[in-house]
Formats: sequence, C-alpha cells, structure tokens
Amino acid sequence: MTELVAPPLDDSARVDGAHDGRGRIDLLFEPTGRKVRVPPGVMLFDAASWNGIAIDSTCGGHGTCRKCKVQVSEGLAPITNLDTRAFSSDELRDGWRLACRVEVTNDLRVQVPELVTRPKAATVGVGRKVILRPAVQKRYVELSEPTLSDQRSDLERLLASLDDLELRCELAVLRRLGPVLRANDFKVTAVVIDDVLVDVEAGDTTARLFGIAFDLGTTTVVATLLDLTTGTPVAVQSMLNRQQPFGADVITRISAIMMDPRALEKLSALAHEALDELAQAVCREGGVRHDEVYEVAIAGNATMTHIALGIDPESLGVAPFIMSTKLFPETLALEVGVHVHERARAVIFPAFGAYVGGDIVSGLLASGMDRDSRQRLFLDIGTNCELVLGNSDRLLATAAPAGPAFEGAAIRCGMRAAPGAIEVVRMSADELELGVIGDVEAQGLCGSGLVDAVAELVQLKLLDGSGRFVADDVARELAPGIGARLTQLGQERVFVLHWLGDPGDVERSIYLSQRDVRELQFAKASIATGWRILLEESGLVPEDLQQVLLAGSFGSYLSPASAIRIGLVPKLPVLRVVSAGNVAGEGAKMALLSMRERAGAMALLDEVEYVELSDRADFNDRFVDQLAFPV
Amino acid sequence: MTELVAPPLDDSARVDGAHDGRGRIDLLFEPTGRKVRVPPGVMLFDAASWNGIAIDSTCGGHGTCRKCKVQVSEGLAPITNLDTRAFSSDELRDGWRLACRVEVTNDLRVQVPELVTRPKAATVGVGRKVILRPAVQKRYVELSEPTLSDQRSDLERLLASLDDLELRCELAVLRRLGPVLRANDFKVTAVVIDDVLVDVEAGDTTARLFGIAFDLGTTTVVATLLDLTTGTPVAVQSMLNRQQPFGADVITRISAIMMDPRALEKLSALAHEALDELAQAVCREGGVRHDEVYEVAIAGNATMTHIALGIDPESLGVAPFIMSTKLFPETLALEVGVHVHERARAVIFPAFGAYVGGDIVSGLLASGMDRDSRQRLFLDIGTNCELVLGNSDRLLATAAPAGPAFEGAAIRCGMRAAPGAIEVVRMSADELELGVIGDVEAQGLCGSGLVDAVAELVQLKLLDGSGRFVADDVARELAPGIGARLTQLGQERVFVLHWLGDPGDVERSIYLSQRDVRELQFAKASIATGWRILLEESGLVPEDLQQVLLAGSFGSYLSPASAIRIGLVPKLPVLRVVSAGNVAGEGAKMALLSMRERAGAMALLDEVEYVELSDRADFNDRFVDQLAFPV
Repeated sequence: MTELVAPPLDDSARVDGAHDGRGRIDLLFEPTGRKVRVPPGVMLFDAASWNGIAIDSTCGGHGTCRKCKVQVSEGLAPITNLDTRAFSSDELRDGWRLACRVEVTNDLRVQVPELVTRPKAATVGVGRKVILRPAVQKRYVELSEPTLSDQRSDLERLLASLDDLELRCELAVLRRLGPVLRANDFKVTAVVIDDVLVDVEAGDTTARLFGIAFDLGTTTVVATLLDLTTGTPVAVQSMLNRQQPFGADVITRISAIMMDPRALEKLSALAHEALDELAQAVCREGGVRHDEVYEVAIAGNATMTHIALGIDPESLGVAPFIMSTKLFPETLALEVGVHVHERARAVIFPAFGAYVGGDIVSGLLASGMDRDSRQRLFLDIGTNCELVLGNSDRLLATAAPAGPAFEGAAIRCGMRAAPGAIEVVRMSADELELGVIGDVEAQGLCGSGLVDAVAELVQLKLLDGSGRFVADDVARELAPGIGARLTQLGQERVFVLHWLGDPGDVERSIYLSQRDVRELQFAKASIATGWRILLEESGLVPEDLQQVLLAGSFGSYLSPASAIRIGLVPKLPVLRVVSAGNVAGEGAKMALLSMRERAGAMALLDEVEYVELSDRADFNDRFVDQLAFPV
Repeated sequence: MTELVAPPLDDSARVDGAHDGRGRIDLLFEPTGRKVRVPPGVMLFDAASWNGIAIDSTCGGHGTCRKCKVQVSEGLAPITNLDTRAFSSDELRDGWRLACRVEVTNDLRVQVPELVTRPKAATVGVGRKVILRPAVQKRYVELSEPTLSDQRSDLERLLASLDDLELRCELAVLRRLGPVLRANDFKVTAVVIDDVLVDVEAGDTTARLFGIAFDLGTTTVVATLLDLTTGTPVAVQSMLNRQQPFGADVITRISAIMMDPRALEKLSALAHEALDELAQAVCREGGVRHDEVYEVAIAGNATMTHIALGIDPESLGVAPFIMSTKLFPETLALEVGVHVHERARAVIFPAFGAYVGGDIVSGLLASGMDRDSRQRLFLDIGTNCELVLGNSDRLLATAAPAGPAFEGAAIRCGMRAAPGAIEVVRMSADELELGVIGDVEAQGLCGSGLVDAVAELVQLKLLDGSGRFVADDVARELAPGIGARLTQLGQERVFVLHWLGDPGDVERSIYLSQRDVRELQFAKASIATGWRILLEESGLVPEDLQQVLLAGSFGSYLSPASAIRIGLVPKLPVLRVVSAGNVAGEGAKMALLSMRERAGAMALLDEVEYVELSDRADFNDRFVDQLAFPV
C-alpha cells in the first residue's frame, strides 16, 4: 500500500464532484481493512471490483438493482438522487450510499456488508457489465445404479443426465469415473469446460467454481482469483516479473534468447514460477483449494505470451517482426506451469501483431472499444506504446516505440514506481509539492512523476516550448519560490526536486536533467506521432475524440492533466482523459466470466486494422514535429 | 516358426485344390527367408499380407491388376485361367503365378519380386480391400518468406498453403514452427492427423509415414508396422502378454486389482512396456525411426483396453458387468506408453460390452460382417467366447464363458500352444499321428490338439455320444491299432497320445483323461448354447449359415473338421468353416489405413444388438442339451 505524502489538495479544485485528473485517492474497505489507491473520478463500486473486493450487485453497477449498499464512515460522498430512493434519511445520515453512484474524489473509509445475492452479472473492465456464462460449469446429478437390464457404461449413464450438452470426456476422467460413482452412490458433480467433461467430483460441489485471471506484464504480473458462480473477485496478488534479470523490456529478453539457446527454457520457467506462485497465493488468500480452479486466463504481450508457452520469440524481435501465431492453441494451465485443477484450461489472449499483443486485445475487450459508438483513443504506455483509435464502426491500431523513460529508466534519478518514488509533482511559482509512494523520503523519480515535473515546468515556462530550460535569471523571475532549484550539475542544466543532503548539494539531490527532458520528449513524440497518424487515417481531428483511455499500470498513475500539458495525449478537456486501470487484467476476468466476451476477444482480431509505422516515409518528419511541447 | 512333424498328408484328401480344413501349411518367402504357417485354403496373397510380407498390388487381391506376380519355386500351385493371361508359357513353366489366385494347399517356397507400385488400396482382414485414406497425412510445402508488407504469422502462412484443410495446431508444433521454417528456407513438411497439425518437419519427408496396429490380447500381443503411404505391412512382432503372472484370463487379472489397489498401476505399466517394446522392435526390423510412426491402433478386449488406459476394470468383473465407456476418448500413443512420434495418436477400438470388446469390433470390421449379405457366424474362442451372428441387415452378439480348456489349462497334460505342444491329432483304427509345434518331442496338449483328439475319438466311437470312454475291450475291437492306448490311471480312464517313457508307463505319458473330455464338453456346450440362442433370435437354422469364421489365434489353428465333429460349431460342409486369422489385428490395420473403415468400426457399435445370456431362464437346460457330441 502506498500513501500520498502531499497535503490534501485544495478543495477549490473540485466543484460539484469534478476533479482535475491529478493525484491519488486512498480507499479503506472494512471489515477486511483492505487499502487501495485509485485515480480520482472512478466509481467506488468499480474501484472495489478492480481490487477484488466484493460488493453485492445483480445489475453490475448500473444503478438499477440498488443492492450495492455500503456505508461511508469517513470522507465525503455526496448523496445522489438514487441514494434518496434507496435509503431512509437516517441511513443517509449514517453514510449509507449505493457504491455504483459514489464518484471517488477524496479518501474514504467504507464499510462493506457481507454478500447476500449471487449476481447473474458482474461489472468488470471500464464499466462493462458481463452476464455470467463461464466456459466452466458444474452439474450435480443423482444417477440410477446399473443393473443387468441396464448395462449402460458409466459414461453413457452420466452423459444421459447431461443431455443438453454434447460432451466429450477426457481420459483422466474415465480413470476415476467408476470408483467415484460407486463410492458416492452415483451422486456426483460433473465439471464441464466448453464441451469437455474434465472431472467428476464426489457429491455436490456446484458452489465451488473458481478461475484466475492473469495480467502477465513485462514488469509486473497480477493474478485475480474469481468466483465464477458470482463473478466476484475473491483475492488479488501481484509480483514483479521474475524475468527482470534478463532485461527490463521485451527486446532485451528476446536478445537474451538469441544469444543463449537455453535462455528460452529459463525465461519460460521463470514465467511459470511467477504464475504458479501467484495462483497459490490467491488460493491461500481466498480460502480456495487449488483443484477448485478450473480455468485461468492470461493476457500478456506477444513476447511474454510466446515465452510463457515455450515458443521461441526470436522472430518477434527482428524485422519483419513475425509471430508464431495470432491465435494460440487450446492449452492446459499445467502447460504454463500453473498447478490448479490438473485438467484446468489456460485461455491465452490472441495477439494482433508482434507489438500489439494479447494484453491490448484484452484491454480493448475490457474497455468495449469495439462496441462503443464514441470515438475513443486507447493508449497503453510502456517501453512500447500501443495505440488503438476508433469506435464500433472501425478500429485502427499501431505501436510506437517509447523507450524506457516512462519506466524511470534512462532517467538520471529515475526509478520504478516503487516505495520512495516521486509519482506526483505539483508546482506553483512559489511552492513545490511531491507525492511519494509509500510515505517515505523520496529516493527517485518514476514515470508519472517525470511527466508531472515536466508538465509543471512547461506550465511555469521554466521549460520553453522546445524543451530547453530557461536561463537561471529568467527562472528566478518567473518562479520566485522555486526558480533557484534550476541549476547546473557539471555540464548539464538540472532542476532539483528534492534535497537528500544539504540544500545546495545538487549531486546528492533528486533532480530532473536537461537530458531527462529530452528522453521524455522522444518518448512522447513517438506516441503523439502514432495517434496523429491514426487520426489522419480515420479522417478525424483530435477534437473528435470523446475519450482517451490510459491503460496499464502506468496509465493508472499518469496525471491526465500533465499528459495533456506535454502533448502526450491530444489536447482535450481533462475529464475526457480517463485512467482505465489494469484493463488487460480486466479483460482476462471477462474472458473467464463469459464465453461470449471470450468470443468477442477473438472477433477483435478481425475487427482491428493494423497500421505499420516503421515503413512510412513521413514518419521521421512527423516525429520531429512532435518533439516540441504544445503552447 | 513351427513345423509339422507328421508325414505329408495323403493327397487323396485333396481333390481339385480342395482341402479338408485340417493341418498346417508352411510357406517360405524369398529373398527374405521368412517362414510362415497358415491353415490350408487361404490365398497366397492374403497369407503374405497377414504376415507382413509385401506383394505388389493395386487392386488389393481381386485379380484385376495382375501385379501380384510371384514365382513358386517349390511346391504345387495349379495354373488358373488368369495366370494364362498374365504370363507366357515359359513364365508359367518357371512357376510364375498371381499370388491372389494361388490357394495354398501344400508347402510352398515363393520368390517375391521387389515392390514397384505404390498401391492406392490394400487387402487386409478377410479379403477386405481398403482404399488408402489414413487419418495421418503429410504435405510438403514451399512458403514465401515474410516481409514487412506480409507480416502473417508463421502459422497463418503455413495454413494458407494447406487451405483445403481446416486445421488446428498443437502447442508442441508452435514451439518449433518458427525455428524449423527459418532453418529450412520455409520448405517443410506438415504432418496432419485428422484436423490437427501435429508436426512440421524439415524438407520433404512425405515418403516416410508409418503406423502400428496392435492386437492386445490377454495372452499374446502382436504389433504390425504399416507403411501408410502404400498400405504395406513392413514388420510384425509378437510377445506374450506380460500380465500373465497376474492371471491367465481377464477375471483373475481383475481380481488381482480388486485385491490390491496398486495392481492396476502395475498391470497398466506391464501393458505399456509390452506395447512399447513391440513398437521399438517393429521399427528396428522395418528400418523406421520411432518418430516416423504417427498413429497406432489398439484392438483389445474391454479388460485389456481398460487396464492399458489406466482405467479401473473392477466393474467389468462383477455383475452387472459395467464398462467405464464404450467409446474411448482421443488418446496419445504416449498415454499408453508407446514412444513413437511424441504427438502420435492411439486409436482405441470401442467395445460393445464388458465381454464383447474392441477385439471383436475390430474382428467384425476385418471380416466385413456388417457389409456382407451372407448369413455368417463369427466365433472368437478363448476362455471367454464371443459370438456374432448375422449379415448386413442385422447383427446379434453375445458372450459365452468357455473356461480355460482351449488354452490348455485345466487339462491334465495341457499346455499353451508353444513348442512341444501337440496341436494336430489324426487317428484311424490302426494309426495315430501327431503334429507337434516346433518339430520337437511332444510335451503336452494344446487347445487345437485337444479338440482334434476328442473329435477323432468320437469319430472312432472310442468316446460315446455322452462323452464317456468306451470299455477297453470295445476299444480294442473298434480300433485294433490304437485301442490299447485307452487305459486307466488311478481312478480315471485315459487315452495315451504319446509315450514319453517306456510304452506302458502311463504316468509319464501325454494322455487325454476322462475329466479333460468333460472340460471340453462344458466349454463347447457353453459356446454351442450361445450360437443356438443367437440363431433362434434371428429365426435361422444352422443350415442357413453360409460361413463360420473362426477368429483369433486359437481359431487359426483349430481344425474346422474337428470343431464340426464335436459340435463346437454348427454342422456344415467343412469348407464353410474358415479360419479367419488374427482378425483383431487386421481390423486395427484397417483403422490405420482408412478413416472410413475407422468410422465403420464406430458405426458397428450401433449396428450390433447384444443378447445377454446370463439372465435367461432357459440357459441351463439348453446348456445341458449341448453337452453331448453330435451323432
């Protein structure tokens, strides 16, 4: 858990529940004591759901079932019209609210009642309501016992009781079918995945049906344990990708494999270990036996997916950037190292291309890009940035190399978004405020802090439009309170964000250097060139965009206002730029909860047109045009 | 190899190529030097084919292609009309014949020319012509290399070149696809089983495509390596079933599993070892790499099949005799312990019931019972006897317990059909002749020798209709030359077949006892009751039968004349009683050679009606009626 060390933001910035798209909100859920941090503006129901906290609901967050009642015991949660119909005035006074109506704009402590309903739908992704129809289902049956005049085989007898399904049976099931039937008076639960009978369990186990959604990122791996009978997240765990020693990004990992033929096996094993460790951890946390998990879904980029499946990713790393396949074959969880039910399936998200992978397909599914009539831009920013533009009529995708700046690498005082990282920077002419992850002294600058810092310096004009620091005297005049932080370290201009030693000891300070600014400019120019080309291809102008979705963990912590300020995203009203959260993980959850959504993910492969940037003659000129900051 | 020690039979018994259905024929094939023994009356082409000796043919033995030319260098082979059209008179004089026209009636030495054609059809089973259409196919393709403007994935590129097939790809293939394509200039051979891409091999390997057909018997396991591009058997090997220490028949093996839960695992492992050892042996013999074998087919009874698949057979052994399944799931060869191509499939023959198993389904396929308009009776005789009666209109099946007599067990001087076993017995009033397996001194009496001995004794009236030995003086009068062999051993009457020690030393002799005769009577009565009930159910009388097929290895060596004499089979002209050979193995070959035949085997499950004998009130009375020998 991380906490904001900056003082509470000035309330004047929030009129009528509006927010400026900056900062973080802390939410504390009782009785579990679970703390989560979310960007301002999300709905409390969604924030809980994304973080694996179950709140009652049958409508899935659409304000119709009025079941998502929670009690806000600390913090401000305005009363909506719907609340007045759902609660008595006493209840309203005690802080009772419908979670799906509470827009989170300040820190809250929330009491979550125990679940009472088993919803038929769940809300996941970016406000997507998913009707529960998992590929996994359980059927409790009581069969008549065989006789000399009814000599049907055990399997025929069982299948006759499931005659609405056309099932094939796995050998593993046949091996236990007879003994299980006879030890349980022919009263058993059939476990079915798609059209395959994968197990026969003693007695009635229909209430125990789980899946795990994995977001297999290059940097971080996240697992969410889902109750497939309710759509409820039961537990969430994450860890750093264990492949980090082989390189921070996909290209260095592919290189490692090209250099050493045994590296694929090692990297593959590391992916399996991470997935399995998380699987066991969420099962422990959720009180679920490993063999009650019958399906897992994995959303990852093409390289992570290839490696996890043990497929050589070499051709992804060199022109013409060829995948082994877009659609991956039916895979067992065991084949990606995940030890849950022995016949559990692994749903592997398909990929558009070597650089627009399964994580993006999953993200698009979660954000409903192909089902929404609004023109939207989906951005997943990392060392590689994936961009998708369009609506239900047409979707265009491309990938733009962004370099490691957003992950805090190649930045002088850069670091990953870990405790000690400056992730929020606010400046006025007089004052500088920092938000540091983990409520500790600042140790470095992570990607969102970098964007904030540059945006604020551009705003104060301490950085000019070309990205050059102004002269010292100009800085002192423009910003009397902080201008003196602009100084020199060796040959380079730097702006000091935090003194670690004595004030004035620049070498021991945390600073932003001229070269850091250049790194950021290169990254944002690459991305901006990408979405400008997509807009042109679609015959659109930036103003046509009704929403920009910032996907991925970096997108969640990036300040929309700062992103607009530096030109990383189109210049739009700040409320149109939305942190979409971990949409890759959300899409994976949707694929587990609904076969229809899973089919939708496959359909996306045909719906999205890929625009290749690397062979465009005008790319370099356009890239140079985008280096400057917007005025 | 075994040889007949009796002197050549009197030629008077064979007029015009006819034979009396008794004895054995030795065939020696050159240049391989391979010796085989077959019952008289089979066609030379079939005899070669059943024993894995390839003879050129495109018509599959129907006398139309005239390609199956062989040179008979020793022994008599009459010239047929077809031969005169196929050969010059010089050639005819040199012994050239069409193998499909040579009815084998005496020992032959045959020169087999090298293969020149690649037939589109093969003859297998009981004269069944099978058009080659194996489930496994290979396609050599030369693909264009990917470019920035053709970024199709490796799999898309490959599948586009196989667009007449709708394939899914296995993970194992994806793992090697990219490297194999790039190491071979995108010139590869795709290996497809049904609709699954199971491998991609370097360069053009289309000529190398093999399968192994297994007859997994309770006593013996036989493997035939087939060239699936020609239908030609490449090698045949057999061994005793390694599970023998757990019991000679299926019931004792099931009992072993009921007594000791770990016995299933052990028996399963023994089955796997036997199958794998034979697989490696036929590959060695045939000069075939293990990974050039892409499919295996296994025909076995329900118990052998259950155990090989690791499925508990317990419920097969106790009333109401329930199988886990009739149709077995898709299985990898690896899952039954056979280490051929790592993704090779195992086709497991389905079973009608606990006692009419996959070996019978395979045998029916091989004998074409469901496609022939003639009324036929199919008998597979062992400790359990399976009976199928009917034609293409209707098929009835049942099983009758026969006890171990036919396997030489529970017989005083009984032994398996191994070297030293008396397998042929001929008697006249003056003389007794024995055929002994392996040209060695007789050591015991196997099933076919038992049937022969009893039949001859009945014929000479030394056994009366009730199965009782006549008095010594009557015997001496009826058969002056051999009557003295009827004597006493302790309390029991015995007939001495062979003196091991001094003539007169009955204790050290090989004899047939009164109790042995009773054992045989019980066995034959059980079987005869079975076919009588089937005939009645079908509204037929024995004379309606146009053929009786004796299946299985015991059936191959049983003398049709003797079987008729003791009433084991209906009283018919001897030529209507035919040894069908190892039809279970033949059906397995057909399943490998043709998907259509494989589908036919599955269809048989619906076409055959099972008649349960054990709950018939009249069974015991009918059984007692059948104990006597026909007069």
